[in-house]
Amino acid sequence: MPAFQNLAQLEDLARRRMSKVGFEYYVGGAEDEVAVRSAREAFGKWVFRPRMLTGGGDPDMRLRILGAEAAFPVLVAPTAFHGLAHPDKELATARGTHDAGSIFTASTSSNASLEDIAASCAGPKWFQLYMQRDRKVSERLVTRAGAAGYKAIMLTVDVPVAGRRERDLRVGFHLPPGLDLGNLKVRIPKSGQRNKSGLVGFIANQQASELAWSDVDSLRGLTKLPIILKGILTAEDAELAVRHGASAIVVSNHGGRQLDHSIAPLDALPEVVAAVKGKVPVLVDGGIQRGTDVLKALALGANATMLGRPVLWGLALGGREGVRAVLEHLRHEVATSMRLLGAHRLADLGPQFLARA
Amino acid sequence: MPAFQNLAQLEDLARRRMSKVGFEYYVGGAEDEVAVRSAREAFGKWVFRPRMLTGGGDPDMRLRILGAEAAFPVLVAPTAFHGLAHPDKELATARGTHDAGSIFTASTSSNASLEDIAASCAGPKWFQLYMQRDRKVSERLVTRAGAAGYKAIMLTVDVPVAGRRERDLRVGFHLPPGLDLGNLKVRIPKSGQRNKSGLVGFIANQQASELAWSDVDSLRGLTKLPIILKGILTAEDAELAVRHGASAIVVSNHGGRQLDHSIAPLDALPEVVAAVKGKVPVLVDGGIQRGTDVLKALALGANATMLGRPVLWGLALGGREGVRAVLEHLRHEVATSMRLLGAHRLADLGPQFLARA
Amino acid sequence: MPAFQNLAQLEDLARRRMSKVGFEYYVGGAEDEVAVRSAREAFGKWVFRPRMLTGGGDPDMRLRILGAEAAFPVLVAPTAFHGLAHPDKELATARGTHDAGSIFTASTSSNASLEDIAASCAGPKWFQLYMQRDRKVSERLVTRAGAAGYKAIMLTVDVPVAGRRERDLRVGFHLPPGLDLGNLKVRIPKSGQRNKSGLVGFIANQQASELAWSDVDSLRGLTKLPIILKGILTAEDAELAVRHGASAIVVSNHGGRQLDHSIAPLDALPEVVAAVKGKVPVLVDGGIQRGTDVLKALALGANATMLGRPVLWGLALGGREGVRAVLEHLRHEVATSMRLLGAHRLADLGPQFLARA
Amino acid sequence: MPAFQNLAQLEDLARRRMSKVGFEYYVGGAEDEVAVRSAREAFGKWVFRPRMLTGGGDPDMRLRILGAEAAFPVLVAPTAFHGLAHPDKELATARGTHDAGSIFTASTSSNASLEDIAASCAGPKWFQLYMQRDRKVSERLVTRAGAAGYKAIMLTVDVPVAGRRERDLRVGFHLPPGLDLGNLKVRIPKSGQRNKSGLVGFIANQQASELAWSDVDSLRGLTKLPIILKGILTAEDAELAVRHGASAIVVSNHGGRQLDHSIAPLDALPEVVAAVKGKVPVLVDGGIQRGTDVLKALALGANATMLGRPVLWGLALGGREGVRAVLEHLRHEVATSMRLLGAHRLADLGPQFLARA
Repeated sequence: MPAFQNLAQLEDLARRRMSKVGFEYYVGGAEDEVAVRSAREAFGKWVFRPRMLTGGGDPDMRLRILGAEAAFPVLVAPTAFHGLAHPDKELATARGTHDAGSIFTASTSSNASLEDIAASCAGPKWFQLYMQRDRKVSERLVTRAGAAGYKAIMLTVDVPVAGRRERDLRVGFHLPPGLDLGNLKVRIPKSGQRNKSGLVGFIANQQASELAWSDVDSLRGLTKLPIILKGILTAEDAELAVRHGASAIVVSNHGGRQLDHSIAPLDALPEVVAAVKGKVPVLVDGGIQRGTDVLKALALGANATMLGRPVLWGLALGGREGVRAVLEHLRHEVATSMRLLGAHRLADLGPQFLARA
Repeated sequence: MPAFQNLAQLEDLARRRMSKVGFEYYVGGAEDEVAVRSAREAFGKWVFRPRMLTGGGDPDMRLRILGAEAAFPVLVAPTAFHGLAHPDKELATARGTHDAGSIFTASTSSNASLEDIAASCAGPKWFQLYMQRDRKVSERLVTRAGAAGYKAIMLTVDVPVAGRRERDLRVGFHLPPGLDLGNLKVRIPKSGQRNKSGLVGFIANQQASELAWSDVDSLRGLTKLPIILKGILTAEDAELAVRHGASAIVVSNHGGRQLDHSIAPLDALPEVVAAVKGKVPVLVDGGIQRGTDVLKALALGANATMLGRPVLWGLALGGREGVRAVLEHLRHEVATSMRLLGAHRLADLGPQFLARA
Repeated sequence: MPAFQNLAQLEDLARRRMSKVGFEYYVGGAEDEVAVRSAREAFGKWVFRPRMLTGGGDPDMRLRILGAEAAFPVLVAPTAFHGLAHPDKELATARGTHDAGSIFTASTSSNASLEDIAASCAGPKWFQLYMQRDRKVSERLVTRAGAAGYKAIMLTVDVPVAGRRERDLRVGFHLPPGLDLGNLKVRIPKSGQRNKSGLVGFIANQQASELAWSDVDSLRGLTKLPIILKGILTAEDAELAVRHGASAIVVSNHGGRQLDHSIAPLDALPEVVAAVKGKVPVLVDGGIQRGTDVLKALALGANATMLGRPVLWGLALGGREGVRAVLEHLRHEVATSMRLLGAHRLADLGPQFLARA
Repeated sequence: MPAFQNLAQLEDLARRRMSKVGFEYYVGGAEDEVAVRSAREAFGKWVFRPRMLTGGGDPDMRLRILGAEAAFPVLVAPTAFHGLAHPDKELATARGTHDAGSIFTASTSSNASLEDIAASCAGPKWFQLYMQRDRKVSERLVTRAGAAGYKAIMLTVDVPVAGRRERDLRVGFHLPPGLDLGNLKVRIPKSGQRNKSGLVGFIANQQASELAWSDVDSLRGLTKLPIILKGILTAEDAELAVRHGASAIVVSNHGGRQLDHSIAPLDALPEVVAAVKGKVPVLVDGGIQRGTDVLKALALGANATMLGRPVLWGLALGGREGVRAVLEHLRHEVATSMRLLGAHRLADLGPQFLARA
C-alpha cells in the first residue's frame, strides 16, 4: 500500500495500477455522471459550527447496528467484481474490513462465493441481494447467506434496469478470462454475442426488473434475517420501507450509476430521516471521502455511512492491508474532526453543528 | 451513421462533416448565445426524486396529440435549410422521423417543397408557418399544407425581426449554389448586394414583422387545421393563445436564435402550464439532449418535447438513417430513465418526481 | 474603424492600437477590479420575458431629458483624457456622439477645453464637474460651461479621494508630453516628484475632498443649469439628491474605479428608482455593452443609460467615425431587441419584461 | 522589502524567499483547505452601499481596546515560529507592529521568548496561551506574561487536537536546526522518532486536549489580566464566553488550520455579535487582505480585525520594516475605503453600508 494523506489521492493511484476496463467500471457512473459529482458536491453545501471547551478525551465512535458492532460509523458498501482489483477478490476486502473494525457487505455480484467470503472473515457481514428474475435463485441466495452467517440481507431496490454507463460501453466492459461470478451460475455470452448494453446490462437482465413492495413482503417470508433496503431517496419510499418491515434503510443513488440527475443522497437524507422518525436506522452512501463528510451525514440524521469506491482503491493498491489502511485512515479523520467539532459520542451529533455554506 | 453513446457527441462529429457555413448556421444563436446556453442549463436546476419498487414492465411512452400518435414524447421541431446537412434535404429527415415513430414538422424555410416532403413520408406531419409580408403568400402556403396532408399549422410568433446571429455575419452565411427555398419563389440577392444582416435578415424581411393576435384570428379563417403557436414564453401570452383559439403551444426561445437573454423555455414552462390550465397541449423545445431532459420537461407539465439541432446532426451524419438513430437513441434513454424513475406511463410524470438542485 | 460585430470585441482591438499607459488607464478599476466585473455581471442576473404578436413597426426609441432630445436611450458618460485615445481628443468624441444622435458629457478632466468641445459639436452637451479644492476654480468652470452652451452640470459625487487604481501604479500612469488638461491650469509635477498614488491621485488632490450636501446647494446658487448628481448608489442618497434640488441622478460606481466592492449600479437601480418616485430622471452607467443591457436597465426603471469605455474604444479605433459607429451599433441592437421583446416605446418597458435568471 | 501594490501579491513573493518547509507551514490549512478558502471568500458575499457628500476629512481610525490604543482596527494575530521567516524572529514582528501603531500578539509557540519580545517592543502587546497538559507550565507562562508587561492573555480554544495539515505531512515539517521554542523547554524528538502527525502534532500533544469552560474560570484565578478567547464560532459559545468572564472574543477558524469545513469567521460574526450584545469587544480574523475586508467586518459588528499570514509574508520579505510596510499599506487602504464609503469614524460603520452580493 503506497503512502497517502487522504482518500482523494487513491483514485489516481489506483488508475495507474488497475486494468483500464476495471478502473473505468469502478469509477464510472450513468450517462453524464452528474449524479456522481452531485453526490460528492452535496457535502460542500454544509459547514460546521464547532463548539469549544467541551472537555472530554478520545471520542467514542462505536456504533451498534442490527445487533452488530462497528468501531466507527463507516461501513463497507456492497460493490461488484472485486476480482477486477485484486486476485484475492472479496476475501481480501472482507478481511481488511474486519481488521479495521467495520462491517463488510458482500455483493450478489461478487467474484468470490458468499461462503468463501464468510469463511475468510470472522467479523460481522451483511449480504447484498439483487432479486433475480428466477425467484428460486433469489431464495437460494438468501438461504445460503443465512447459513453462512451473514447478519442481514441488504436488498438493492434501485436497479429495475441497469443504468446507462457510457464508460463501460466505450471500453467494452467485460470480465477478464478466469473471473467468474462467485454466487451465480450464469453463462456469460462471449463479447461478440452481447448487445449494446454490455455485460452489465446482461447481468441486470437476469435480475428481477418488476420488483415491487410485495416482493419485500415475500422476502421477509424467506428469511429471519433483518432486511435492509438500499437505494431509497424519498420520504414516501422511506415510509413504505418502514411499513413493509425493513429493518434499516440505505439512502443511496447507487454511486451515481443508475439514474443520472438523481438527487444527491445527502440532500435526500433529511427528508428520509424525518419520515422514518427513528423507527429504523438510516444509512447513507455516495461521495464520502473525508471524516468531515461522515460527520455531516451523521449531523443530518444518518446513523452510519457506507463507503464504496475508496475501499476498492485500497483493495487495488494493497489488498487486505490496503482496505484496512483506507478504513483506518478515515477512522482517524473522523476521530480528529469529532474532537475539533466538540462532539464526544455519535449521539451528540445533530443539526446544531451545521450551517448552510 | 458513426457510432455514438449520446447526443452530445453528435455536434462535434457533425462539425467535421458539414460545411462551415452550414454548421455555424445550425449551431449558432443570437448575439452572445447566452439564451442557447441557458436553455440547456435550465435542466440542471432540477434533480429527480425517483421512486422504487413500483413494479411494472416496459414503460408506455405513447402520446396522442392533435389526433396523431407518437411512439414517445419527442417530436421533431421545425428547422430551416436541411439541404445544408444532406443532399436528400427534408425528405430524409421526414422519413427518419417516421421510421422512429415520431412526428415531423416541416419548415416554411425548407429546401424541399412541402409537397415533396409530404409525399416522402407516410407518418403524421405538421407544417411550420412564417407569416409572410404578402399575406396572399401565407394563404397559399396554408392551403397547400392542408392539401398535402399536414395535420396542423405551427405558426412561429417570435420573429418580428431576425435575431442578430453574429456567427452568420462572421462567416457570411449564404445558401450554396443549387440550394433553393422549396416553398417560396424568392429571388435571393447575390451576396454582394446583401446588407449587413445577411441572408437570414433578407428572408426575415419577407416575413410579416407586424404580426399581431388578430393575425392568429385571420389564420383560423384560412384553415380548418389546428393551429399551434410556437415561441410563447409567458403566462400572459399563453392565456392569449388559448383565448385566440390556439390548439397547442410550443414554449420556445427559438433555440436561442432570436432574443438573447430570453428566459429559458424550461424556466418559462411552469407558468405557461399554470396559465393554460390543461385546455391545450403544451410542448417545449430548447436544449434537450438526454432522456432525463425529456422527463424533467414532462414532470414540469409539458405534454411533449421537440428536438431541433440533434436531429440536424443526425441528418448530417447519416441522412434518414441518422435521423432515425438519433431519435431511437433518445427513445431508449427516455425508456431507461422512466424505469429508473419508477414512472410507467407519461401521465404518471409530475412535479413529485423533481426537487430543486 | 475596423469591422466589428459587437462592442465586446472593441476592447481587444483598442488594446492593440493604444499606448499601454492609455489603455490601462481606461480599462482599469480600483484594487481588485471586483466592482468593474460585478457591474457587468449584474446584467446576467436578469432574463427577459418577451411578449409576442404585439404588432407595430420600428420601435420609438426617442428620449427627452432635461430639455434635450436623444435618438435612443444611450448617452455618453464623462470620461477623462481623450487625448490618450486620439489626436482629435474630445472634439472627435463630441462630434461622433452628435452624429449618432446622442448627448455628449464633457469631463472636467478633458484634454480639450470645454469651449473647443462646445464649438465643435452642435448637439446637446452636458458638462461634468469635479468640484475643485479652490471653489473659485469650480465657479469659473460652471460659468464657462453655461457660457459655452452646455445644458446641464453633472456633479461627480463619488471622488472624495481617488480610488486605488493599481494598474496605474504598475504602469506609472502619466500624461504623455504635449497632452495637457484642457480646462484647468494645473502644473503637473514630473513623474520623479510624484507620490505613490500617481498622477490620478495628484489631480484628485486638487479636487474638493470634503464635498457635502451643502456644496450642492451652493452649486445651485452658481448656475441656472440643471444639476445632475453622478455616483449615487443608495436610496438614502437618492432621496437627499431630490431634496437638494438635483434635476437628475446617475446611478454609477464610477466604472468600478473608486470604491472596489461597491454595489453594482444595476443592483442599486431599483432602490434608487423607488426612492426617487419619478420626481427626476434616473440614469445608470457601468458595464453596458449590449442593447439587451440597455433594455434591462430601462425595464428596472432607468430613464436612460450612459456609455463609458466602449465610446473610448471607438474613439481610439476610429476617431469621430468610430464613436459614431459604436453608438449606432448599440442603437441597432436596442432597436432589434425592443422588437423581439415586444416593446414599442421606451415607456412600455417595465419589470413585467424581466425575471430573475 | 520589495515594492508591492497589495497584500495578495506578498504570498508569491514570500514563497520565493522562504524555505519550502517554512512557507508550506505558514500557508497551509487543514485537509482540503476548504476553510482557508471559504474564510477569504466570505468577504465576497457582501458589497458596499457607499454614501456620498458626507463632508469631513481624514477618517478617524483609532481604536481603544482593553485599555490599549491602536492606530487603526487591524491587530496582529498570534502565529507560531517566526524564526521560519526571519532571523530576528518575533522581535522584528513586534517592532514592526509597534512602528505601524498596531498591537502585537505573541504566541506561546514563538521562537523568541516572551520576555525578549516584550523587551524589544514598547507598544501594547498581548500574549497568546496554549493551555499546556501540565497546568503548572501554563501557570508559569501566564505569570511571566504579566511580569513582562503583556496587557492581555489570549487563550486559544480551538486546538483540543492539532488539525490535519497535509502540507506539513507531505513536506515533513520540522523546525530547522538552531530554532527552538522560545517559551517552553520541550525536548523535540528527532524526525525519525516522530509519528505521522509530525512536529505540530507533537507540540499539540503537549497541550491540554481536554480544555473545558472550567479551565477558563481557573485561568481567571491565575491572572488579573483580561482574558480574550480566540476561536469562537457560534452564538452559544459567545454567550458562554461572556458568562465565564472573557474580556473579548476573537471569532476565528484558526486560519483554516484546525477543523476543515468550519464556518467562515465572517459568516459566524453576525451571530456572535448578536449574542454578545456589546458586553465585550468582538474581533475577527481569517482571510483579511484588503481594507475593504476590514470595513466589511466592522460593518458586521466587529470591533477590530486581526491579521495573520500577510504579517508573516512581510516579515519574511523585509523583517521589521516589512511588517511595518504591510500594516501601513493596509492602514492606507482602510483610510481610502472609509472615505469612499462615507464613514468618518469606526463607530459610523454598520450594516447600513452593506448589501448581499
